[in-house]
Amino acid sequence: MNKNSSNMMALAPNTSNKRETVCIFGTGDFGRALGHKMIQSGYPVVYGSRSTQISNLIPKDAEVLGHAEAAQKAAIIIIAIQRQHYNFLIPLAEVLRGKVLVDISNNLKLNQYPESNAEHLAQLLPGSKVVKAFNTVSAWALQSGTLDASRQVFVCGDDVEAKQMVMNIVRALGLTPLDKGSLLAAQEIENYPLQLFPMWKFPIFLSLGLTAFFFLYCVVLDIIYTYIYEKNDFSFFIAITIPNRVCPVMALILLALVYLPGIFAAIIQLYRGTKYRRFPDWLDKWMLCRKQLGLIALGFASLHVVFTLVTPMRAFASWRTGKGIISQVLNNKTEPLDHTNAWLSDSYLALGILGFFLFVLLGITSLPSVSNNVNWREFRFVQSKLGYLALILCTAHTLVYGGKWFLSPSAYKWYLPNIYILSLIVPCAVLVVKFVLILPCVDKPLTQIRQGWERNPKYSK
Amino acid sequence: MNKNSSNMMALAPNTSNKRETVCIFGTGDFGRALGHKMIQSGYPVVYGSRSTQISNLIPKDAEVLGHAEAAQKAAIIIIAIQRQHYNFLIPLAEVLRGKVLVDISNNLKLNQYPESNAEHLAQLLPGSKVVKAFNTVSAWALQSGTLDASRQVFVCGDDVEAKQMVMNIVRALGLTPLDKGSLLAAQEIENYPLQLFPMWKFPIFLSLGLTAFFFLYCVVLDIIYTYIYEKNDFSFFIAITIPNRVCPVMALILLALVYLPGIFAAIIQLYRGTKYRRFPDWLDKWMLCRKQLGLIALGFASLHVVFTLVTPMRAFASWRTGKGIISQVLNNKTEPLDHTNAWLSDSYLALGILGFFLFVLLGITSLPSVSNNVNWREFRFVQSKLGYLALILCTAHTLVYGGKWFLSPSAYKWYLPNIYILSLIVPCAVLVVKFVLILPCVDKPLTQIRQGWERNPKYSK
Amino acid sequence: MNKNSSNMMALAPNTSNKRETVCIFGTGDFGRALGHKMIQSGYPVVYGSRSTQISNLIPKDAEVLGHAEAAQKAAIIIIAIQRQHYNFLIPLAEVLRGKVLVDISNNLKLNQYPESNAEHLAQLLPGSKVVKAFNTVSAWALQSGTLDASRQVFVCGDDVEAKQMVMNIVRALGLTPLDKGSLLAAQEIENYPLQLFPMWKFPIFLSLGLTAFFFLYCVVLDIIYTYIYEKNDFSFFIAITIPNRVCPVMALILLALVYLPGIFAAIIQLYRGTKYRRFPDWLDKWMLCRKQLGLIALGFASLHVVFTLVTPMRAFASWRTGKGIISQVLNNKTEPLDHTNAWLSDSYLALGILGFFLFVLLGITSLPSVSNNVNWREFRFVQSKLGYLALILCTAHTLVYGGKWFLSPSAYKWYLPNIYILSLIVPCAVLVVKFVLILPCVDKPLTQIRQGWERNPKYSK
Repeated sequence: MNKNSSNMMALAPNTSNKRETVCIFGTGDFGRALGHKMIQSGYPVVYGSRSTQISNLIPKDAEVLGHAEAAQKAAIIIIAIQRQHYNFLIPLAEVLRGKVLVDISNNLKLNQYPESNAEHLAQLLPGSKVVKAFNTVSAWALQSGTLDASRQVFVCGDDVEAKQMVMNIVRALGLTPLDKGSLLAAQEIENYPLQLFPMWKFPIFLSLGLTAFFFLYCVVLDIIYTYIYEKNDFSFFIAITIPNRVCPVMALILLALVYLPGIFAAIIQLYRGTKYRRFPDWLDKWMLCRKQLGLIALGFASLHVVFTLVTPMRAFASWRTGKGIISQVLNNKTEPLDHTNAWLSDSYLALGILGFFLFVLLGITSLPSVSNNVNWREFRFVQSKLGYLALILCTAHTLVYGGKWFLSPSAYKWYLPNIYILSLIVPCAVLVVKFVLILPCVDKPLTQIRQGWERNPKYSK
Repeated sequence: MNKNSSNMMALAPNTSNKRETVCIFGTGDFGRALGHKMIQSGYPVVYGSRSTQISNLIPKDAEVLGHAEAAQKAAIIIIAIQRQHYNFLIPLAEVLRGKVLVDISNNLKLNQYPESNAEHLAQLLPGSKVVKAFNTVSAWALQSGTLDASRQVFVCGDDVEAKQMVMNIVRALGLTPLDKGSLLAAQEIENYPLQLFPMWKFPIFLSLGLTAFFFLYCVVLDIIYTYIYEKNDFSFFIAITIPNRVCPVMALILLALVYLPGIFAAIIQLYRGTKYRRFPDWLDKWMLCRKQLGLIALGFASLHVVFTLVTPMRAFASWRTGKGIISQVLNNKTEPLDHTNAWLSDSYLALGILGFFLFVLLGITSLPSVSNNVNWREFRFVQSKLGYLALILCTAHTLVYGGKWFLSPSAYKWYLPNIYILSLIVPCAVLVVKFVLILPCVDKPLTQIRQGWERNPKYSK
Repeated sequence: MNKNSSNMMALAPNTSNKRETVCIFGTGDFGRALGHKMIQSGYPVVYGSRSTQISNLIPKDAEVLGHAEAAQKAAIIIIAIQRQHYNFLIPLAEVLRGKVLVDISNNLKLNQYPESNAEHLAQLLPGSKVVKAFNTVSAWALQSGTLDASRQVFVCGDDVEAKQMVMNIVRALGLTPLDKGSLLAAQEIENYPLQLFPMWKFPIFLSLGLTAFFFLYCVVLDIIYTYIYEKNDFSFFIAITIPNRVCPVMALILLALVYLPGIFAAIIQLYRGTKYRRFPDWLDKWMLCRKQLGLIALGFASLHVVFTLVTPMRAFASWRTGKGIISQVLNNKTEPLDHTNAWLSDSYLALGILGFFLFVLLGITSLPSVSNNVNWREFRFVQSKLGYLALILCTAHTLVYGGKWFLSPSAYKWYLPNIYILSLIVPCAVLVVKFVLILPCVDKPLTQIRQGWERNPKYSK
């Protein structure tokens, strides 16, 4: 495991195993963790430090020298110090000339400085070759060896050879380097570890808000109304019955919201008669989070499926079944099979199953590894054709299931419409407008516009 | 966001942020879309055009010049014109000498020309460095920024440095370059965006055909026969009962068809006594779409599972349950638990669940990102060992469930065998022949042949 | 398809399609398979062999020469011979000087030799450029063209240009080269194809052992005890009832075992007052297989869900339902809805569904392509926050469901505790200790230690 941890090995005949000495400036937590890991992987490590007194936190096999001496011992110098202290490197410019400097720093906020730390370093020391790397790896993960998360290390830099040298070290540590191009990518790389699902924020807050609203709506109509007017305590509906009413409603509405921005975009393009003007900002943002909206909708749909399937396991359901049968027995009559009912129940179940099946297919194709293996045409086919088919099936499922409530007066407790009626507004609107948009007389000019034609070329001047 | 969109920035001291001017030949839709995107990413863009009159479709920050002048301003020239017009570039050969030409063209059909567009361009202008790129990206996606699909841009070219320059631009536009090697790969890259699931076509048509056949078979036997002879209208069986009969049958047959070509291949190799002859074409093609067959089988199996699980929610099922209980009550007797029946029902359910579980495991390992993380030995273990185990379990599930129909005369309505009997033919045949093939006396010569031994080395001369 | 399979093509004017001659040393199975494939892809192939007599196994379009002559014809020489025979190459050192040697060898055991075969070759022939490649591809897959498994070919070598040449060949054969860096990576690449799920071994054996134990435990208590004391034959419980008792228990225990090592690590760090000492070996290994433990737990949880959902399809269940209703009818009373029971049954179902939902989310984020697309912070959030939430929900699900058995004396047949009680020990312990660890007075020093602080810096000397 612990091959050539000292410089002596450099003289050994087995030259192919020789690793180049690496210098680390800074003895902070990440500098120490990286040093530990490098020594484990067979690199001689020398620390550059203000005080050359050997600190007992530093790995035992590492040397500690002054900055200048340490830098002279290695071709690669890892800058494990904070951006604020980069200025102290300026006097060392001569020693660092031609060396590879690895910037591993992170910031505390997104876009904290106008230019990235690595570009700042390159401007301070124009004679050195700056490479950005390692900032996406956590010190804790390096130390404990438990890299369950991504082993990817983003690397960027202007000097191809310097980048290659750093990428070799990354590989030797058991990590996967990913070349992100020139130093211009450093800003993006420095922002990367600060993000917490940025694309998910809006869809999640929207879903939470809508879910809370529909949950309360159901509690009022199904529990409170029943308690007041029928003196029945159905508070246990909170656990399964109401979630299973909210989940399908949310799934349907969110799925429709995936296709709504495309509808808006088409209308805007038709109205403007050109595609060469940017959409309003809210529409751009909405279009960029369609995948996330769709996946959340899939989550609600899956919950709806499982909540529905456990129905026979519920004490309430078996009590109701028993009550129905016993009342038949006591009335001494056997009800014949109601064919309309059989048709209705089987239809909405079958529609729901097929819709959910297509929905899951859409979810699978949005896995990164699958969507990377299909071309643009295939992706459009799946997401657009199959997606609309799923929306149609799910809307039909809700219509067949909830249809009987539309006209029944009991569905309007306290003059509030039933939740099924609410859930159908957006999907039906999307489907109707989409149907208009694919009529030949509307589709033809739209296709022309999307191919670059302009109705009114003047105004773009 | 919009850094150095003008050439003035080139003189600014912050040289690390400077982007090289890019020239675009052609002002068609894709040329304009790419120009827009490049200007957004900070590249100065100059268009080369026949008429230097500024068209109002062209991005405002771009210059428009004659071809020769535009080419002189940049080291990279994007050729956004169609292959038929490549000849007009020949007079510009001197200006283009040493420049990087990016071929972004696509064809309308697979293998439309004997050599790829990029290779054709390289032959016309041997002094330039041709790189193929960007043809897999859609103009619409570039413009709208909604790159939900793959962000991969395939790049190929003979000059490593030229390729590197183009890949840097690709990265700067927020896309992921994928080096596909020398210009020989251009043909493949040009064919890529024209495909629509080429490997899926045969499996999907086969499945659709078989599904239609079995569906009609069931409609005839279960609905029409019952209507004629028993005067019962079971037309609502079309929604769930019959799909749930067709799905498991399809899943089992398609799963067996995944393993059948391997059986054929082994028999052919045993018969020929060598592995150094190509299989017949139909077998080659069949073997290449085994994964797709398996995934479609998994789709049918999943539908079967959900169709089965919704059974208690069906009006028909609760009517039948009630009828059974009421008849017991009216006859005033409680039936004791039928142990044979309990064993049978629990066995086929357990076999089906385990078979489906293994089937899903197989599906997960065929996800690109998972199969890229297992080596050949692990993949063979999962796909071959676990796959056969899944086939055995699913066949046993069908045998236990459908077994009672084999001998009962009521299963032969109109002298047609029950669908369960039909579904078992292929899987049982595969399992029996596979069992013969793993007998030591057959397995030994087969293994030798697969390791390169030949029974009859003469004929390969 | 079969372009320039002869050397004549090299003189053709279409020079961009010309492929460089490749030499293969060794006419064994893999050498022949590779030669076949290369000729198919348009490479002229020349074999170097001891006997230049043309063997009829060798592809017809290939030349066969002595080693020295063959080597002179090509810039790339594939060494398709075994490591034991590498010494015979030493006399050829002059001919091979400057050539690219591709080491494709594999070993029979992990780490069979102190240095990798490729490094050994590089030491024998220091004048040649050794590249490791192709060892992860099977000859059978190359020959039959059925590369369902990974198309990745790991490539490593010290000479960048030589590596590039080999990677171009890999791409031309329709495979995907993956640059693994310098020749130091050869050992890892040679070990790769020998592994059979190395990280899965311990979790799988642990699961099998525990499953067997709990299965027997249930058989004894549910079947044998009942048979002896109640004279009831419930042997059919083996198929579904007992598996559905063992699966949730296994899922819960394994999920808790995923979080237990993190608890141990925190306690060890608190006790030692430093993070700069390695954990004991068993803990390191345990932490490295947490993902596998979690995925196996997810498998058990999925089986539990399906086993539960098929309940209404079981003959036993419908018999029991019927019996309950009939006894109500015969006693001529209709039981009212038991609200406590309705609450309990709905609560544990809802808790289980939500726990399982989070569990599946965790499983999806551990797919390689998904975890590569999240940063460290996002991964920690999902795996740690959502993971603990899943554990809490699943523990609560078990507590609510199994709670009634804790105090009931009938749960202690033969003085053995009920299986639900056993299953709750580990998860409850984990949750209690975790709760202590996040108390501010404990969390603060722990966070300090993890940021590099040491309570007692002396002892690390």
